[in-house]
Amino acid sequence: MTEVNLTLAEGRALAMKCLMANGCDEHNAAAVADNMMLAERDMCSSHGLFRLPWHVASLGAGKANGKARPRLDMLAPAVIRLHGDRAFAPVGHRLGHAPLVEAARSNGMAALAFVDMYHVAALWPEVEALSTEGLVAFAFTASLPYVAPFGGTKPVYGTNPMSFGWPRKGKPPLVFDQATAAMARGEVMIAAREGHTLPENVGIDENGNPTRDPEAVLRGAQLPFGGYKGSSLALMIELLAGPLIGDFLSIEADRDDAGAGAAPHGGELILVLDPARFGDPQGHMDHAERLFDVILSMDGSRLPGDRRYQNRLKTKEGGFYIPRSLYDKIDELMQ
Amino acid sequence: MTEVNLTLAEGRALAMKCLMANGCDEHNAAAVADNMMLAERDMCSSHGLFRLPWHVASLGAGKANGKARPRLDMLAPAVIRLHGDRAFAPVGHRLGHAPLVEAARSNGMAALAFVDMYHVAALWPEVEALSTEGLVAFAFTASLPYVAPFGGTKPVYGTNPMSFGWPRKGKPPLVFDQATAAMARGEVMIAAREGHTLPENVGIDENGNPTRDPEAVLRGAQLPFGGYKGSSLALMIELLAGPLIGDFLSIEADRDDAGAGAAPHGGELILVLDPARFGDPQGHMDHAERLFDVILSMDGSRLPGDRRYQNRLKTKEGGFYIPRSLYDKIDELMQ
Repeated sequence: MTEVNLTLAEGRALAMKCLMANGCDEHNAAAVADNMMLAERDMCSSHGLFRLPWHVASLGAGKANGKARPRLDMLAPAVIRLHGDRAFAPVGHRLGHAPLVEAARSNGMAALAFVDMYHVAALWPEVEALSTEGLVAFAFTASLPYVAPFGGTKPVYGTNPMSFGWPRKGKPPLVFDQATAAMARGEVMIAAREGHTLPENVGIDENGNPTRDPEAVLRGAQLPFGGYKGSSLALMIELLAGPLIGDFLSIEADRDDAGAGAAPHGGELILVLDPARFGDPQGHMDHAERLFDVILSMDGSRLPGDRRYQNRLKTKEGGFYIPRSLYDKIDELMQ
Repeated sequence: MTEVNLTLAEGRALAMKCLMANGCDEHNAAAVADNMMLAERDMCSSHGLFRLPWHVASLGAGKANGKARPRLDMLAPAVIRLHGDRAFAPVGHRLGHAPLVEAARSNGMAALAFVDMYHVAALWPEVEALSTEGLVAFAFTASLPYVAPFGGTKPVYGTNPMSFGWPRKGKPPLVFDQATAAMARGEVMIAAREGHTLPENVGIDENGNPTRDPEAVLRGAQLPFGGYKGSSLALMIELLAGPLIGDFLSIEADRDDAGAGAAPHGGELILVLDPARFGDPQGHMDHAERLFDVILSMDGSRLPGDRRYQNRLKTKEGGFYIPRSLYDKIDELMQ
């Protein structure tokens, strides 16, 4: 048997135990473990227990703070600053969620400028939570310099994902979460490990030449999706999650890490709009459903996030699976 | 001589005259003509006088209102609704700009939900104007159903552009403006007219099969840039510029047009953030410049918008050029 089957409760307990054995207090461990179980529940295993070793490394290097106590600060009626105290991102999201919802309802829109934290989680859980309350939400974060700007030769941008959520009646929200890199960093690493060739336009080598060799891309740079348009979006996300809120650019997060191999240290910007204050308080959701119906009427076309929601139903019954090798590694991390 | 050289003052006068000969009052004509001259000044000729015939058609069909008087309505402290009264978009931008800036400065961020207007202009002038005042700005608009969702076979989305602006000290802002369609509608039309073959992944035929024949794409559908990621962005923009603010989806704008061939009737969402209220009021611009320096240090890599700004210096001296055929057509439109 090369896989281990766990219920979500078992997975949570395992993550809690591992994090607490490595310097997290219960409050911090619970936020991270719950977030990992959202990923496992939706079969996004790359953001589940798979990330525990990286969390442990970040704690062990004295980078991330397992006993963090983030705090809030109102910078303007519609702008909340969330000081992370070097927490893992989900610890801050737990604190910031309700004040952000309240500020958005009061002003029609609001922002959470989340700084000084370590983000290695998926970017959809925070927007899904906000859109579940009827709000439209966006999240943006940078990471470490992996991606060359369009036309450039050296890594400057992070994989720089953005997520977006739109509320639906009696259904989980429509949510997407996508990197501006053409391929996820983890997928390039897996291709390197397994000796696969990459698709075209995924990366360049150290000299800036196109290559399909994953090892060469890891030494060189990944490329943005969609050419110069994806590159512009990556730049936008660097600016929003860095200079706008007063936190690191991806190139600065790399210097801050100084080779420790910790999670990226930086910021996240979350923007929330309250459709109840935007001109069609009663009709906006039904209106959007008419568009969704047209999209779903075509074979081959689907709504972002739907696969995750289908997976969610499956794990409810059967739990989830992790490789035996990961299970053993987590066990080692607790010794 | 196949081209006509005009100064910006001459171009403006020509546009004003043509618009006023076709039902615009001076106030409406001036906003549109000024906007077209911003495009000609930056050598974005596809948004300059080239669009006059489409404006005239929109007026002639009784769709766009050349004597519109848009009005503002505060929906929430940070949300302004701009009722377009069927104006061309620049007429509304002129009215909405100052209140939007004021709301953003007061609340840290603000939105302009601009409805019931006709948008055939570029999307960068409004964000450039906002970022020139030190603000970070986004604009989103839908159009007419030209683009199939990823995996789908029929046109549903508009070319759905978004623009973004970031302020710089002593320089024009960093601005990008990009469609979520892989190729501009106008370029596909030009390729059809000139008998050129399209690049791959630009469009599909009426049966949903990939094709490089521009005529087939015009009968079928364009494709989003960057595969499913561009498609998600197109969907997001439909939701923001349509249901959120209570205006048309692209498919509804098409029904509203009912074959008149007018400009797309719909909405635009503009979001503005005030960096002075976001945690690094003093340092954010210098911080961003450090990123721009790295990007510009690489051969082949440049900042979005830079080409436009270089063009701007050229037209200041030499004016701009339009094809003789367009000049003659505009002349006809005034008979």
